[in-house]
Amino acid sequence: MPFALSELEHPIVQAPMAGGPSTPALAAAVSEAGGLGFLAAGYKAGDAVRADVEAVRAATGKSFGINLFAPPQPVPDALAVGRYARALAKHYGQSGTPRHDDDGWEEKLALVAELRVPVVSVTFGCPDGSVVERLHAAGIAVWATVTAPGEARTAEAAGVDALVVQGVEAGGHRATFDDTAPVDLGLLAALQLVRAVTALPLVATGGLATGSSVAAVLAAGAAAAQLGTAFMLAPESGTTPAHREAIAVDDETGLTRAFTGRTARGIVNRFQREHTDGAPLGYPDVHHVTAPLRAAARERGDAGGFHLWAGQAHALAEPLPAAELVRRLAAEARAALRDAGG
Amino acid sequence: MPFALSELEHPIVQAPMAGGPSTPALAAAVSEAGGLGFLAAGYKAGDAVRADVEAVRAATGKSFGINLFAPPQPVPDALAVGRYARALAKHYGQSGTPRHDDDGWEEKLALVAELRVPVVSVTFGCPDGSVVERLHAAGIAVWATVTAPGEARTAEAAGVDALVVQGVEAGGHRATFDDTAPVDLGLLAALQLVRAVTALPLVATGGLATGSSVAAVLAAGAAAAQLGTAFMLAPESGTTPAHREAIAVDDETGLTRAFTGRTARGIVNRFQREHTDGAPLGYPDVHHVTAPLRAAARERGDAGGFHLWAGQAHALAEPLPAAELVRRLAAEARAALRDAGG
Repeated sequence: MPFALSELEHPIVQAPMAGGPSTPALAAAVSEAGGLGFLAAGYKAGDAVRADVEAVRAATGKSFGINLFAPPQPVPDALAVGRYARALAKHYGQSGTPRHDDDGWEEKLALVAELRVPVVSVTFGCPDGSVVERLHAAGIAVWATVTAPGEARTAEAAGVDALVVQGVEAGGHRATFDDTAPVDLGLLAALQLVRAVTALPLVATGGLATGSSVAAVLAAGAAAAQLGTAFMLAPESGTTPAHREAIAVDDETGLTRAFTGRTARGIVNRFQREHTDGAPLGYPDVHHVTAPLRAAARERGDAGGFHLWAGQAHALAEPLPAAELVRRLAAEARAALRDAGG
Repeated sequence: MPFALSELEHPIVQAPMAGGPSTPALAAAVSEAGGLGFLAAGYKAGDAVRADVEAVRAATGKSFGINLFAPPQPVPDALAVGRYARALAKHYGQSGTPRHDDDGWEEKLALVAELRVPVVSVTFGCPDGSVVERLHAAGIAVWATVTAPGEARTAEAAGVDALVVQGVEAGGHRATFDDTAPVDLGLLAALQLVRAVTALPLVATGGLATGSSVAAVLAAGAAAAQLGTAFMLAPESGTTPAHREAIAVDDETGLTRAFTGRTARGIVNRFQREHTDGAPLGYPDVHHVTAPLRAAARERGDAGGFHLWAGQAHALAEPLPAAELVRRLAAEARAALRDAGG
């Protein structure tokens, strides 16, 4: 039997956070504590993904998940991406080269099937029915990440086992299938609208930081809450020191395409302020354009120069070990439901 | 003793909806059913407000509330408002004249104090401590509408009794104190962040349409849920037929200043699509500019030509009598909390 959410001791899923914050240690700690930990395959080579999966398995016998990026949409205006690259190069004295790639989609699909990772979630689009069947044949539960009821219908038609419903409060990339027509549903609105079109199990994500917010999404009908930013200060997370500092301060977040060409939420910093208006649509091409600039900023500890992905409630994140956070969130959620129900 | 939320039989507040949808019949039906009905004083002359209050009192002995608009901010760029007015006049052959007024703030304060309306909520800013004291002296409970934790701190310092926490999902005007620096917190994120800075009772609003969403905000720590759009199809509401039709269809909503010069959420229609980008900040000046155009469109039943205020979950609104909706939401919320807690 593939993994089912009802198997979890605690209805807490750790969100996959590509680009550093997700680590095997974090995923293993969350799963071992009774939640569901997640690896992020995005941006990684196949060998690194395999090593991550093996590292989780060495640390826990519990179920865990891995997230894959669906192949990207075509870039609507390659000239605009080129102009953006030249403008950044002029401004910063360097920039990367636009490149359109699919993050090794087929290779990673084959890999997760071979490794029989218990849960595979997909973001940035819906896997085809044939892909879902292939993963099912390997005993894998398949989740799609959706932001609106139309996407939920598409994913259900493809045969997925559960939906991650992402509200606009979420940090990092919006999961919207078609980023040229972004939607901006808040999490509670999205949960209601998605529930109206499907009976699939829902995992709620976006701006959840406290046990009472976990209780809220369970009351709204979700089977589990998925938290990303809340885990970014855990010692097991790979979050950089500059990013950790930014998360702890209550600065505003905003949506931007400046870093990757795809809409994402980050704490508003210098780069985001200066380039959000001029940034074109075009993922992952723009990601490759800004990558060297961001790497350089990260290296010199300049929090103004790279993406500070964070959800709207980031200021409530606490630097707790992941297992402690899982248990605390679950206990607080139970108490909140008791209080509200009684 | 002024009104306290714990007196409610059902934790359901009907949102004040200025400009037509709120009626004495709607407020009375909600209060009589065990929720808290609300009148909207905005845009109305003092005599009409007095008549509304008397009409509610003739229909129910239960508590109810009334909402006042706080005096507006100065218009940052009057020339831009003038340009917008001229552009609309050219496009439509008519437009109103920009006018800066305070919606009769002092007159309405005196009136609600005289009439001892049980609850007075304020939107678009925070009442001064002296105003709160004056209303308290008349036995009135005072609520402030907030969208972010900073506003919550300001309102608590002014001595208010409760906070209406409005998420970005909400239909109609954003309650943001300073519309030149809008925030966009989703409801669940806002509830967590506001709760972190105050122990005041919270009333949650924004995109709530179902009993499970009511349960969600109660689990998140709110004392009650406030619903607006959900009541707009009730027979007791003054919603126009064209607006009712639009609410029932699952078209997208968006934020715009095109109609009033203040950020508000409406179902995206022709006017909103054509004028959102060019619309200046400047409330209520722009409201007066577009008023004749909107009145004309409303008269000819043209849903493309006036503001279709609606929250993000509007497609889930049902044409039920208000009392039935209150009872159903409360029963569904109780069941949802039971299910999630057990």
